[in-house]
Amino acid sequence: MNPLPPPVEPPPAVEVPFFGLIAADLAEVERLLHRTLASSRGHTRRLLNHLRHYRGKRLRPALLLLAAHASGGIRPVHHVLAAVVEMIHTATLVHDDVLDHAAVRRHAATVNAAWGNHASILLGDYLFTHAFHLASTVDARACSLIGQATNRVCEGELHQIGERGNLELTEEEYLEIIDGKTAELTACCGRLGALYADAPDDFVTALGHYGRWLGLAFQIADDLLDLVGSEERTGKSLGTDLEQNKLTLPVIHLLRESPPATATVVRQLLSSPGNHKRTALSPYLSEHGSLDYARRRAEGFATLAREELASLPPSPGRAVLELLTERVVHRQS
Amino acid sequence: MNPLPPPVEPPPAVEVPFFGLIAADLAEVERLLHRTLASSRGHTRRLLNHLRHYRGKRLRPALLLLAAHASGGIRPVHHVLAAVVEMIHTATLVHDDVLDHAAVRRHAATVNAAWGNHASILLGDYLFTHAFHLASTVDARACSLIGQATNRVCEGELHQIGERGNLELTEEEYLEIIDGKTAELTACCGRLGALYADAPDDFVTALGHYGRWLGLAFQIADDLLDLVGSEERTGKSLGTDLEQNKLTLPVIHLLRESPPATATVVRQLLSSPGNHKRTALSPYLSEHGSLDYARRRAEGFATLAREELASLPPSPGRAVLELLTERVVHRQS
Repeated sequence: MNPLPPPVEPPPAVEVPFFGLIAADLAEVERLLHRTLASSRGHTRRLLNHLRHYRGKRLRPALLLLAAHASGGIRPVHHVLAAVVEMIHTATLVHDDVLDHAAVRRHAATVNAAWGNHASILLGDYLFTHAFHLASTVDARACSLIGQATNRVCEGELHQIGERGNLELTEEEYLEIIDGKTAELTACCGRLGALYADAPDDFVTALGHYGRWLGLAFQIADDLLDLVGSEERTGKSLGTDLEQNKLTLPVIHLLRESPPATATVVRQLLSSPGNHKRTALSPYLSEHGSLDYARRRAEGFATLAREELASLPPSPGRAVLELLTERVVHRQS
Repeated sequence: MNPLPPPVEPPPAVEVPFFGLIAADLAEVERLLHRTLASSRGHTRRLLNHLRHYRGKRLRPALLLLAAHASGGIRPVHHVLAAVVEMIHTATLVHDDVLDHAAVRRHAATVNAAWGNHASILLGDYLFTHAFHLASTVDARACSLIGQATNRVCEGELHQIGERGNLELTEEEYLEIIDGKTAELTACCGRLGALYADAPDDFVTALGHYGRWLGLAFQIADDLLDLVGSEERTGKSLGTDLEQNKLTLPVIHLLRESPPATATVVRQLLSSPGNHKRTALSPYLSEHGSLDYARRRAEGFATLAREELASLPPSPGRAVLELLTERVVHRQS
């Protein structure tokens, strides 16, 4: 897709509260989420309470709010839209946990491990429909943009499960999958932030592109963590891509770049049953530079994201968006 | 909820094509469904093709179109809305099949039996998001009404699984569950049909109520079929409510009305493992009038639905809606 950029030095750790600039806005989004998901039904309430364990980085709401901040200013409608995208993201997480047979997420039992698949599916549906209903309080354009993005997220996920076990998956196909399942929604966040700040068209386009590149960088880094991250630090089950026979970028690189004899061994390893694959694969990935390759690819997309910001006037919002491009690549959880 | 009405004689079978009045409109809805769900991706296309086996009675689109026909006339927007409600209904069917571990629906393997749970969940999500996106082509009001109804559908389903295994479930709680999971969407169909025909407010209200009573009658009849219907005629796995420990109206009546000794036996039977429950329960249900009771309750709701039509001027649309109230109760598939 894009030429491979040179390696980038990891930035110094950001010690200040990273989203301090939008802390009050994120708190408002939390209040909205809480209010929207309040339900009187006993069983539903128990399930919804369990969702606090899914409370993650709030990347998508933060991205939407920062895009607004950097392109015209945050308005009340942004809080609503930020709550919508977070609910949609959480819905896909809850359903993904069923898909991946994952037992642990964010240091807590997943909904399906604790309550069964039935509850997970319905809870995800409940989040989807509440998200769309909340979007309808904005306007039809918001419903359309969010609907369009979510359509592509589902298509990306369906594409991915259709390619499970395909050891011939190319880098291009991999990028198409993550472009759908992850980058489409982050692109939508960038666009919505700018659109509802009444930003000029070129800001809307730039922040949409920013969100797309950021999403690609984020997903490649996420897939790297699944291969070589620490379960203790990430707080979730890892190695699920290998268990589910989903090829991610480092493995695609390894199969493509290693000598035929090595590739044959790796193929056999990938096709074998059992959950030892993550450990067994690790030395091959290091030796053939596959982890470095994926990191550089993620950094390349992060650089593209940063470059999109050049058209915006300097501002605190833009500065945090810049930092964010480094954050999503160099993280351990 | 409502006083029990006297038994009603089953009507003569309607031999003419039942939805002949709206045949061209239903065909237009099919075209819209086909166009909306067209996808270029190989795996997704295979899954979508499989959905033709889910093609059922098209009750919800027909209801929406007939409500429009009877209250001001069908417009192009009704075709879009009818496609939306059918997609939402199909999404819940696909997800219900995962929930119920059902292997057969409409004489064909369910998506989850043929392609796995993963595919079922994602396909259902895909249908949900495409439905909401399609609704956004109408206006924010349509998104809001459909979002609101779908919220309650999910709440009803969550309520139902929360009550699984509860042998103390009351008739009132049962009615509340089916009011959410089924009648909310049929009520929405009635309202949408009238609203977008620019019907006066009292027609909108009457057709909304009609849809709700019809949905309740339909679901009670559906639950009866699950207990005593023929798998050959319905073309789907039956007895799933018992397998899943979901109490439905005849069983609630039986536990409530039979002598304590019988109720104890029935309770033991319901709590036992195995799939013999449907056969074992049958004589008890007949002997204690529980099937008749549920039938009369369904007829009662069908009567309430018919009565709502009194405020509408006589028309072919209204006549078919009247017939429909008898159809949904006296059916064998």
